[in-house]
Amino acid sequence: MNRYHKPTREEISTICTRPAMDVSALAETVNHIFQKITQYGDAALLDFTEKFDKIKLDHLLVSESEIMGAANSIPVHLQKAITIAHGNITRFHQMQQSEIIKVETSEGVSCWQKSVPIEKVGLYIPGGTAPLFSTVLMLAIPATIAGCEEIVLCTPPDQYGAIHPAILYTAHLCGVTTIVKAGGAQAIAAMSIGTHTVTKVDKIFGPGNQYVTAAKMQAFASGTAIDMPAGPSEALVFADETGHPEFIASDLLSQAEHGVDSQVIFVTTDESLVDRVEAAIEEQISSLPRQEIASLSLAHSHAVSYEDADAAFAFINEYAPEHFIISSDQSESYIDRIKNAGSVFLGNYTPESAGDYASGTNHTLPTNGHAKAFSGVNLDSFCKKITFQHISEQGLAGLGQTIIDMAEAEQLQAHANAVKIRLR
Amino acid sequence: MNRYHKPTREEISTICTRPAMDVSALAETVNHIFQKITQYGDAALLDFTEKFDKIKLDHLLVSESEIMGAANSIPVHLQKAITIAHGNITRFHQMQQSEIIKVETSEGVSCWQKSVPIEKVGLYIPGGTAPLFSTVLMLAIPATIAGCEEIVLCTPPDQYGAIHPAILYTAHLCGVTTIVKAGGAQAIAAMSIGTHTVTKVDKIFGPGNQYVTAAKMQAFASGTAIDMPAGPSEALVFADETGHPEFIASDLLSQAEHGVDSQVIFVTTDESLVDRVEAAIEEQISSLPRQEIASLSLAHSHAVSYEDADAAFAFINEYAPEHFIISSDQSESYIDRIKNAGSVFLGNYTPESAGDYASGTNHTLPTNGHAKAFSGVNLDSFCKKITFQHISEQGLAGLGQTIIDMAEAEQLQAHANAVKIRLR
Repeated sequence: MNRYHKPTREEISTICTRPAMDVSALAETVNHIFQKITQYGDAALLDFTEKFDKIKLDHLLVSESEIMGAANSIPVHLQKAITIAHGNITRFHQMQQSEIIKVETSEGVSCWQKSVPIEKVGLYIPGGTAPLFSTVLMLAIPATIAGCEEIVLCTPPDQYGAIHPAILYTAHLCGVTTIVKAGGAQAIAAMSIGTHTVTKVDKIFGPGNQYVTAAKMQAFASGTAIDMPAGPSEALVFADETGHPEFIASDLLSQAEHGVDSQVIFVTTDESLVDRVEAAIEEQISSLPRQEIASLSLAHSHAVSYEDADAAFAFINEYAPEHFIISSDQSESYIDRIKNAGSVFLGNYTPESAGDYASGTNHTLPTNGHAKAFSGVNLDSFCKKITFQHISEQGLAGLGQTIIDMAEAEQLQAHANAVKIRLR
Repeated sequence: MNRYHKPTREEISTICTRPAMDVSALAETVNHIFQKITQYGDAALLDFTEKFDKIKLDHLLVSESEIMGAANSIPVHLQKAITIAHGNITRFHQMQQSEIIKVETSEGVSCWQKSVPIEKVGLYIPGGTAPLFSTVLMLAIPATIAGCEEIVLCTPPDQYGAIHPAILYTAHLCGVTTIVKAGGAQAIAAMSIGTHTVTKVDKIFGPGNQYVTAAKMQAFASGTAIDMPAGPSEALVFADETGHPEFIASDLLSQAEHGVDSQVIFVTTDESLVDRVEAAIEEQISSLPRQEIASLSLAHSHAVSYEDADAAFAFINEYAPEHFIISSDQSESYIDRIKNAGSVFLGNYTPESAGDYASGTNHTLPTNGHAKAFSGVNLDSFCKKITFQHISEQGLAGLGQTIIDMAEAEQLQAHANAVKIRLR
C-alpha cells in the first residue's frame, strides 16, 4: 500500500481519482450492436451470442424445465443460505415502502405523492466462472416488492448454452418472469430497444464489463433509464485505535480479490495500525485462491493516516467510497460525520461481505465518487413517484389570484386564463 | 387537432412518438465548450458570454447590492404571490422528509437507510423575455429543505449584463448562496467542471434549450449527476361526460402557448366533447398574446376518443404524460388506473397552471415518455440514501455460515475469510 500521513491537496486529489474508464472508445462498437439489434432483433441477438459467447443457440429463453431442474444441482446448504439471505433482503427492502401522506398546502388545495412501480424492468447479470446469484437477489427482490409487472433477466450462456443453476434457482425464487440467454452490449441493446423475444424495458439495472457499461450509457442516451453509472468496486476501511488489524486486513482483501482494478483504501487515526494491517494482509493473502488478483489490486491501494477524526472524515467524504467500513468499538459515534458513502458497515463484527450477501442491504452501490449524488439500488429505484393535486372550487378561489399574478409576470396569459375561466 | 376514434396500434405509436430532439448533432459544439472551460475556466466563461449573450462582463457573480435592489423592482402584488407559492411549495416538500427506520433483519443484524443531502447542487434557469422565477422556487426550495450546503444558480445575463429582478428576488428568498451570470452549455460546463468562480457541483438541475440539454448529457457522461433527460413540455387532458369544454380548452391552451414544440393531447370517453372543446379553443385563442405559438402547437395536437375508460387509460399510460389533467366530477375514481404520469391534476377546478406555480407540487417533471421510469423533481432529488448496517458478535455468529456458503459458491474466498476470522 502507498502510505500517506496527512496527504496534501494534490495527494488527496490523486488518491480520489479512480482509474479512468473511457467507454467513449467503445461507442462505435456499441453503436453498431444497437443498430443490428434494431434492424434484425432476435436474429442479431443470436448472431452476437454465437460470436462473443461461442455458442449457437436455438432458443433465447430459458425453458421451464431448465428452471425446474436447477434446484437439483444446488447443494442443500447453499439453497438454505440463499433462502436466509432472501429473507433478510426482503425485510430490509419491504421496510422502505412509504405511505401516502396528503398535505393541505392551502385551504382546499390537497397535494400528495404516490409511489408507483416501473412496469417493465431489465436486470443484467454478468457471466464468467463464478455465478453472481447474489446480484440476482439484490435486483429481483426489490423489483418484486415494488410490484414491477415484467422483470426480464439477461445473462450470457456458457459454452454449452446453459445458465448456471444458482442463477436460475435464485431468479425463480425471486419471481423473475423471463430469463434470456444473452449477455454483453447486445443484451443491453435488446432490453433497451425490444425484440420479438425480449421486452423493451423502461429501466435497466445491473453490473457488467466495459461493454455493458458503454451500452447502458447508450441506452440512457436513447431514453431508457439506468440504475447508475458503473465503475470498478471500492472499499474504504476507517479505523481508530480500537480497530482490529486482522479484521481490517480481511476486509481490504475481500475488496482486493474482486479484480485488479478494485480500489482499496485504509484510513486511520492510529498510525501504528498501518504496519500491523500490512503484516496481517501478508499473512492472510498467501492462502487465497485469488492471491494474484488481490496482490495486483493492493499494489495501487493507499493507507492514509491523520491525527484527528475530523481531518480523516473530510478526506473520506471527498473520496465518497462505495463500501465504507468503520472498524471501531465506537463506530456509531462517527455516523453524523458521514456525508458521502454508498453503504456503511459499523463496528468490528460487520464485514463488507455481510452486506454483499445477506445482512439485507443492497450491494448495488455507487462507485467512482458517485456516492456524492447517487443512492445505491433500493426500493425507490424500481418505482417513480407521481404527484397528485386536487383543488376545490373554494380552494381555487383562494389561490387563484396568486397563480394569475405569477403567470402574468412570466407572460403566460393562457396559464392565467385557465384560472380566470374557472372562477368566472 | 388530429382526431382519432379508437386509434390502431400504429396510430398510438405515432401519437406517442415525440418530436426527436437529436442533441448528438450538437455534441461537437458542446465538447468544444467543455474543453475551453476546462482549459481557461472563468476566462472562457466570460468569452462565451460575450459571444452568445452579447455582453462583456467584468464580474461573473451577482453582487449583494444587485440582489438587495431587486425587491424594489418587483410589484408588491407579485412579491405577495411569490411568498404564498413559496409557502405551499415548502409545505409540500417538507412533507417528503422521511424518518430513519431501523429493521433487525436477523437477530443482532440491524439495517437502516439515512437520507443525506447532496452537498453541492447547481440550478440552471434559462433566460429570455419572460423570467422563469417559478423554476427558481421549484428547484431552490427542495434544495434548501434537503440541506444542500452549496446552491449555485446559473442564469444568462441580458444585453445590459443584468439578471431579471424577479429571479434575483426569488433566489434570495429561497436561500440560494451564489448566483452566476452565465447561461447555455458554458454554464452547465462550468458547474460540471468547476472554475475559479463557479463551484464544481455534484448534481445539475433545470430546464433549457437544446444546447443546455446536450451539455447536461455531456456532464452526466463525465460524472456529474443530472435531474432527468429533458424534452418539450406536454399536457394530456382526459375528460369523461362531466368535463367542462371551456376548462379543458383553457388547459390545452396553457400547454400550447409554451412553445411550438409543446405536446397537447385530449383524450375522452365522450366523443361529443371533441367538437365542443375545439369550439372553446377557437373562442379563447383569439385573445391570447401568444396566439401564434399556440396555433402552431395545436396544429400537431391530437384528440383521441374511446368508448370506455379502460381503453383510454391503456393509451394514456402508454403515452406517459408529463402533466395529466383529469377533467371530471369523479376524478378520484380514476386514480388507481394511473401507471405513468409526471403530475396529476384532479377535478374540474385544478388547472395545470396551479401546479406550475403555486399548489405546492413540483413543476420539473419527466417529458418524452420518461414518466414511465422517472419521478419529477422532489426532495429525494437533492438527497442520496446511504445504507447502514451494524452486526453484533452474536449476530455474526448467527448469520456467518450463510455469508460463508454464498461467498464460497461465488468463489470469493477472502469474502468468506472476513467472516471466519471474526468468528475464530
